Amino acid sequence: MKILIPDTIPLTPELPDGWEAVVIDAREAIPAEHHDAAVLVVWGASRRHLASAAEHLGELRLVQSLSAGIDGILAAGFGPGVEIAAGAGLHSLTVSEHALALLLSLLRRLPESREAQQRHEWSAELGGLQPLHPEGRLTTLIGARVLIWGFGQIGQNLAPTLQALGAEVRGAARSAGTRNGIEVIAEEDVLAALPEVDVLIDILPATEQTTGAVGREVLAALPDHAILINVGRGATVDQDALRQALEAGTLGSAGLDVTTPEPLPAEDPLWHAPRLLITPHAAGGRPVGADERISMNLRALVDGTERLHVAAR
Amino acid sequence: MKILIPDTIPLTPELPDGWEAVVIDAREAIPAEHHDAAVLVVWGASRRHLASAAEHLGELRLVQSLSAGIDGILAAGFGPGVEIAAGAGLHSLTVSEHALALLLSLLRRLPESREAQQRHEWSAELGGLQPLHPEGRLTTLIGARVLIWGFGQIGQNLAPTLQALGAEVRGAARSAGTRNGIEVIAEEDVLAALPEVDVLIDILPATEQTTGAVGREVLAALPDHAILINVGRGATVDQDALRQALEAGTLGSAGLDVTTPEPLPAEDPLWHAPRLLITPHAAGGRPVGADERISMNLRALVDGTERLHVAAR
Repeated sequence: MKILIPDTIPLTPELPDGWEAVVIDAREAIPAEHHDAAVLVVWGASRRHLASAAEHLGELRLVQSLSAGIDGILAAGFGPGVEIAAGAGLHSLTVSEHALALLLSLLRRLPESREAQQRHEWSAELGGLQPLHPEGRLTTLIGARVLIWGFGQIGQNLAPTLQALGAEVRGAARSAGTRNGIEVIAEEDVLAALPEVDVLIDILPATEQTTGAVGREVLAALPDHAILINVGRGATVDQDALRQALEAGTLGSAGLDVTTPEPLPAEDPLWHAPRLLITPHAAGGRPVGADERISMNLRALVDGTERLHVAAR
Repeated sequence: MKILIPDTIPLTPELPDGWEAVVIDAREAIPAEHHDAAVLVVWGASRRHLASAAEHLGELRLVQSLSAGIDGILAAGFGPGVEIAAGAGLHSLTVSEHALALLLSLLRRLPESREAQQRHEWSAELGGLQPLHPEGRLTTLIGARVLIWGFGQIGQNLAPTLQALGAEVRGAARSAGTRNGIEVIAEEDVLAALPEVDVLIDILPATEQTTGAVGREVLAALPDHAILINVGRGATVDQDALRQALEAGTLGSAGLDVTTPEPLPAEDPLWHAPRLLITPHAAGGRPVGADERISMNLRALVDGTERLHVAAR
């Protein structure tokens, strides 16, 4: 049996007896001599690569993505007999770290400090004695009410760290409940909850339902001092509405690691919206534990046991 | 009995029976009618205020600082019969948060993203697919070896958060041992440990012994990719040595919330050292739990029990 490994990341998964791993170009069509592969590992694949795989890999049983988001793979046209496993959890630490970097940078006004530094200016109003909770501005996670919308592996990893920093954290997901000790509200209750939310962290996947989820209505429901972070997918935010809210001062600040489209074109007015930090899809991009995940799902395939994080479709 | 409360922060401590609280100007000399005070709370006090208190408060028993650092009070000349209690722990959350903000901002290269944003540029080399541990550069806390030099309340608060983000954390203090489950090395062993340190977090107090502690020798011992954070006191870092290390590329980057002097003069060459973030002493500045601390130490004074965080002198 054959497993195809992308050339975009060094990987050395443990192979069951009788399996062969072949490294292939993740940007190109699958070479004809590998159309017999049973497993395809996807990382940094081009559309052409995925379309070629969907069309030609007649014996394919499993597409193992190393990304948390698998919208690109789902759209590629793989047959219903092919399992598509998301790389859920492989990006929990890195994306949590980036979300926290964006959030703390905005809370602690590091961009303003940086600009003052460039002017060689010790900006007294950014430092020194200050109220813990100044009127109309959020400057610390202590007591901050955080809602993580899209409460999967990343959110569940991030939540305890935010709590340790003093925040009150809730999640929002399809169904309400408690996960890992964190209260989770149902998505249909998000809008009603937003007036009591200081920080909204968007980790939503890209689906038809989530397109533009953070739009005019959501932004208007948040307090004027609220901070929005998006480390999910760009399409979940209505960028015109976001820019207008920042310009109007009805949103405190925002940090986006994802945009629509990517790369964001130079002429897009979003670039110079006030109190906005944009990073170029830098949160993840480096799966942690990829070899172990591939090995586990390969073993499960051989043993006929359940594969991890297979998408329902 | 009388307790003097500074006008620099709203405070309403619980007073024992027979005690009176008087709010006074923390920038000015103590008015003569309050020279009978038994307790002085210090926050944002001028030198003049402290000198006046040391000279005139003949019945003073306790100076309760709301700062973690009490070097200014120790230098003011209070008699040996006056206890000086540090505000240890009141800044653990806020200073930890700021240290983390500086560190994550440098790790995740947010200043570079910000500059690319100002040019309306999606900087592909900052995002997308990337190695977890690129050669010669530290870009995540996952697996990073962190040493917190000055392992008091703030360090002990910060350490578990860094661990949750994937770092290996040790402290350095006067004596070796284990505190809250974190390995602590003795200060005399710091230099030998530095070649295996990726992130050095300086939370040292200002004393004669710590002046210039992070100097040429320390900076040379750190790996070239190392990150230095200082949220302790400016005097603990040799700023010329730091600037030269950054210019020479023998230090990865640095984040300073404190400098010598403060404010840092506009003509100081430190302002434009490469890969350096300066914030204007913004980490703390807002004690959390001040009323409770004052109330506890006041009660302990009345009851004759031990006061918290009294400085040895």
